[in-house]
Amino acid sequence: MGDAPLPMADAHSLDALTEALRRLPGVGLKSAARMAFHLLQHDRAGALQLSTTLAQAVEQVRYCGLCHTFTESEVCSTCLDTRRDRTQLCVVETPADQAALERTGAYKGLYFVLMGKLSPLDGIGPHDIGLQKLFDRLGGAELSLQGEVFPAVKEVILATNFTAEGEATAHVIAQALRATDIRVTRLSRGVPVGSELEYVDLGTIAHALVDRRSAAG
Amino acid sequence: MGDAPLPMADAHSLDALTEALRRLPGVGLKSAARMAFHLLQHDRAGALQLSTTLAQAVEQVRYCGLCHTFTESEVCSTCLDTRRDRTQLCVVETPADQAALERTGAYKGLYFVLMGKLSPLDGIGPHDIGLQKLFDRLGGAELSLQGEVFPAVKEVILATNFTAEGEATAHVIAQALRATDIRVTRLSRGVPVGSELEYVDLGTIAHALVDRRSAAG
Repeated sequence: MGDAPLPMADAHSLDALTEALRRLPGVGLKSAARMAFHLLQHDRAGALQLSTTLAQAVEQVRYCGLCHTFTESEVCSTCLDTRRDRTQLCVVETPADQAALERTGAYKGLYFVLMGKLSPLDGIGPHDIGLQKLFDRLGGAELSLQGEVFPAVKEVILATNFTAEGEATAHVIAQALRATDIRVTRLSRGVPVGSELEYVDLGTIAHALVDRRSAAG
Repeated sequence: MGDAPLPMADAHSLDALTEALRRLPGVGLKSAARMAFHLLQHDRAGALQLSTTLAQAVEQVRYCGLCHTFTESEVCSTCLDTRRDRTQLCVVETPADQAALERTGAYKGLYFVLMGKLSPLDGIGPHDIGLQKLFDRLGGAELSLQGEVFPAVKEVILATNFTAEGEATAHVIAQALRATDIRVTRLSRGVPVGSELEYVDLGTIAHALVDRRSAAG
């Protein structure tokens, strides 16, 4: 009783669909029920398309061997782009953050996508994000992959979000690289503190790239 | 440029997934991108489950031959329930509205689920919702289905939402049934005007059921 369940007559597959939709981030019980109703009543073609694309994405999407972002190849096209400066590596939390930086047009180096951030409160430690893979990437000198040569990285630009977790993640990376010859910089504080890159206007991001500062380490 | 696209490196299946997620009601581009990221990074099992349940629901969910709600059988279990008063028919917009009425425990008749409401501004006319099917259901005298006998309906309770579209839908049904012997009632105005049934507290719904009034027609 009360406000909890929305039993959908005796359509068990509909209940199962509603349950599955609830696993999407930001989707509660009523949203899930509305989504299921919409798909079955108004957009069965969309439901089948979503079903197919989900299965295909799970099967085909893997991680770039070099930058750890989502790709369908061994190495993503951004890493293989010969016009990019392979001695610069910009570290971001997610592909969406990378896309935000790309849209500024102000950066021509390579990226490393952590696919998360350190967040002890959520139980996310160094082993749950791509930190070790980043250190492996930086540890080697010259790399050869897919017939391409990747020289040793000379500068790491920390572009994790300017939130508590993002700052902590940047701090851990800067500390770990302290003993190396790699120059470690951080996006300038032009980015408003407490906000997330994905939502910052492009001019601010471009400015922060130009004004990047030496990391405290 | 600008704030529009979030290209996800060269993972085409990921772009396709994001596009498919955008077809869900209430999901914009950034929500869709976040959902896709979440599923691929943190919950691939959930993605596969969603894919499977979508395909199964599309294949198995159809409409009850009697009340037009979602079911996997020819006639839903609510319609076949012999403890219910088969001379009463409560007309609602969606299965979620039906579920809200059921939770009150104050109604023991049958339902008819329109699966929508008249909404000329959205191009939804009488032929786009279950109106004709409702009139067919009410037109016949006694019905035999699945070895069960359904006597002629004596009362239709209009429980469409108390919004402009819901009121218009109720009005159209009341008008159409004017020439028949069927008693047509409307949930009492205990339900706050402008709100949707699904979100009303159970006590108010129960009260409105008891206080139902003769429809203006």
